[in-house]
Amino acid sequence: MNFSSKLIEEAVHAFASLPGIGRKTALRLVLHLVKQPPEMTQQLAGALVKMRRDIRECEQCHNISDDKRCAICANPHRDQRLVCVVEGIRDVMAIEDTGQYRGLYHILGGVISPIEGVGPADLNVDSLIQRVQAGGVKEVIMAISPTIEGETTIFYLSKKLRDSGVQVSTIARGISFGGDLEYADELTLGRSIVARVPYKGMSE
Amino acid sequence: MNFSSKLIEEAVHAFASLPGIGRKTALRLVLHLVKQPPEMTQQLAGALVKMRRDIRECEQCHNISDDKRCAICANPHRDQRLVCVVEGIRDVMAIEDTGQYRGLYHILGGVISPIEGVGPADLNVDSLIQRVQAGGVKEVIMAISPTIEGETTIFYLSKKLRDSGVQVSTIARGISFGGDLEYADELTLGRSIVARVPYKGMSE
Repeated sequence: MNFSSKLIEEAVHAFASLPGIGRKTALRLVLHLVKQPPEMTQQLAGALVKMRRDIRECEQCHNISDDKRCAICANPHRDQRLVCVVEGIRDVMAIEDTGQYRGLYHILGGVISPIEGVGPADLNVDSLIQRVQAGGVKEVIMAISPTIEGETTIFYLSKKLRDSGVQVSTIARGISFGGDLEYADELTLGRSIVARVPYKGMSE
Repeated sequence: MNFSSKLIEEAVHAFASLPGIGRKTALRLVLHLVKQPPEMTQQLAGALVKMRRDIRECEQCHNISDDKRCAICANPHRDQRLVCVVEGIRDVMAIEDTGQYRGLYHILGGVISPIEGVGPADLNVDSLIQRVQAGGVKEVIMAISPTIEGETTIFYLSKKLRDSGVQVSTIARGISFGGDLEYADELTLGRSIVARVPYKGMSE
């Protein structure tokens, strides 16, 4: 693309360095900013720079945080005895959006993957063990994707946590609500038959 | 979405104010910036602010420009006798990308549209007339979308330019290269039969 402007070229290049933004989309965004008052660009740039400068990692759960402790860890109304172990920040947001969980989190920062060269030392494993050993935690819930790497990670963590006396659980797996049996994969369907639960009626 | 971070929330909000960027995409972009070194965010923000602050309108053709005159108007190798009238900046880029045009441009900033309340006074019409009257222009090429508003605009401009003695042309309309006759609209197909041209063979 021929921009005939170095300024536009550089702004397009900067936007296009973001994931999922191609040069055409980047140009559309830049031309949008050109049409808007300069304050809008300053506001966007300011919010991004401020966010990147001030954002921290929660010292307890490794979530992104505005302060030393994240809003979840710092909330006295949350159940401090429950720790939900997740791969990343997005998982926290997804679980929070359900409104069904009132405990704390622990962000691993990934899963154990020998193929990608990710070992336990690359993840926030030690801080989890220390957190549990420090006492006060009753249950550790593994909310990790049921992939081979995820299962390996759960197995490794549960072994590490065995001596601490804490209860380890995983989120329920099975057929999605609204899911079609016909299109469910064999593994999920097979396991959900083996792990069937007593019917509790429509009370809830 | 529950971000549990004011900083993330504000950055997502800023990104999501851009066209075509929803909150999910905005979050993906923000989390990408969090993972990258702070310099990357500063670079992005810097490029945008600098672009918005320094970008100007070319005093001759109304194209976006880094200087008083845009790179196209300031280029002595371009044919100063040809002026191609377009609706907007993107049209300039599209024509430049073809590499088939070596003249100058004039950006109208839209088309005459009584429904949307856009009249000749809202467009860069006067500066076009003055530019032609100042002399040196031999041909004005109307590269305007063949919509009702576009045709109205071409008609209006050609009437305004009639007395100046300049030649007025429009870009060729017809069936697209690679286009299928079967799927061409009636108007285009009908007009392209009426405006048929002598066959020149495969020489070009």
